Amino acid sequence: MQVAAFLFDGITALDVVGPYEVLQRLPGAEVRFVARNAGPVRTDNGFLALHADHGFADVTSADVLVVPGGFGTRALEGDVEVLDWIRAIDTTTTWTTSVCTGALLLAAAGLLDGLEATTHWLQLERLREHGVTPTRRRVVEQGKYVTAAGVSSGIDMALTLAARVAGPEVAQAIQLSIEYDPQPPFDAGSPDKAPPAVVELIHAAVAAGAK
Amino acid sequence: MQVAAFLFDGITALDVVGPYEVLQRLPGAEVRFVARNAGPVRTDNGFLALHADHGFADVTSADVLVVPGGFGTRALEGDVEVLDWIRAIDTTTTWTTSVCTGALLLAAAGLLDGLEATTHWLQLERLREHGVTPTRRRVVEQGKYVTAAGVSSGIDMALTLAARVAGPEVAQAIQLSIEYDPQPPFDAGSPDKAPPAVVELIHAAVAAGAK
Repeated sequence: MQVAAFLFDGITALDVVGPYEVLQRLPGAEVRFVARNAGPVRTDNGFLALHADHGFADVTSADVLVVPGGFGTRALEGDVEVLDWIRAIDTTTTWTTSVCTGALLLAAAGLLDGLEATTHWLQLERLREHGVTPTRRRVVEQGKYVTAAGVSSGIDMALTLAARVAGPEVAQAIQLSIEYDPQPPFDAGSPDKAPPAVVELIHAAVAAGAK
Repeated sequence: MQVAAFLFDGITALDVVGPYEVLQRLPGAEVRFVARNAGPVRTDNGFLALHADHGFADVTSADVLVVPGGFGTRALEGDVEVLDWIRAIDTTTTWTTSVCTGALLLAAAGLLDGLEATTHWLQLERLREHGVTPTRRRVVEQGKYVTAAGVSSGIDMALTLAARVAGPEVAQAIQLSIEYDPQPPFDAGSPDKAPPAVVELIHAAVAAGAK
């Protein structure tokens, strides 16, 4: 099973590494990291470079496409070369997936027209700009299109997908391999659950232009 | 705040990217990825290269040290250069942390002598070889030493640490930023919770030499 994971400058690393860490454990999986051109891409903060072994020209099909998010997606929503590659791969996939603002690239490519989808909670309403209906579910399955909410949700999305691809027992074995028994010290991972002062902190940071 | 994250060939990417994604959001944080020599390292399966911007010689201190795990740690448990670097950085840290089998490197370096620690559930008993008491808690704090269980537990560890460093409100804001509101489709993330047949799948794969 060929998995193609899209990389770009300004990516949020966990968006892509979460699903990768799950999907690479599927029997027979091969994960290829693909950017416009082969070579390193830098995360949003510049601290980490992930290496794309492949450029768009090298990868023309995949069974699963993973489109992660990050601040870098904004510049790509109108990038014809990127959207054309996503559309071309999508014609070959069994599953086309996104994490976080990766959904805005799928939406900009026209792949989610008339469907429900999710993305990072701060960007959710932007899906409407592309004719897509936002929903607050953490993992949204619409036929072969599976979108996940912000950053860490890609792990949940990939486990859901693993169960679809290889059955619940394999998905559970993968969950156990990565010891995904979440015990966050707080219950503040969604705007419905976080204290209002914490939600306000994020809005203030966004308003101040912080990443 | 300087965070040093250790990279090596055979790393499990999520072990280091989980904590990175949390700690990079701490006010004033700078994360440096450090390997024996600057350059790319490959994950356990060879699918992904992470780039170390720094070699050991460049980084001689840190406020927080993150030592991730992966199959590559086994070869490093007797690697004097690696253990010396970990010990040297540790003399400068406020927090020294590990994820997964990274704990075996801290243990091999003698930093956990007489303490409790955790690591991936399959490797837990190996801590005893280094005079360390294994415990099944997901995040184990012993003074400045904070060890986490397998792979995905680094996210919980880093949020715990974020609260220690910057207070609960900042930690919650980081949790909300990465939308860490876990909703795995199964409850199989620990050997106590997974169905026995799933635990047996893992043991059989290990016995067969699978990674």
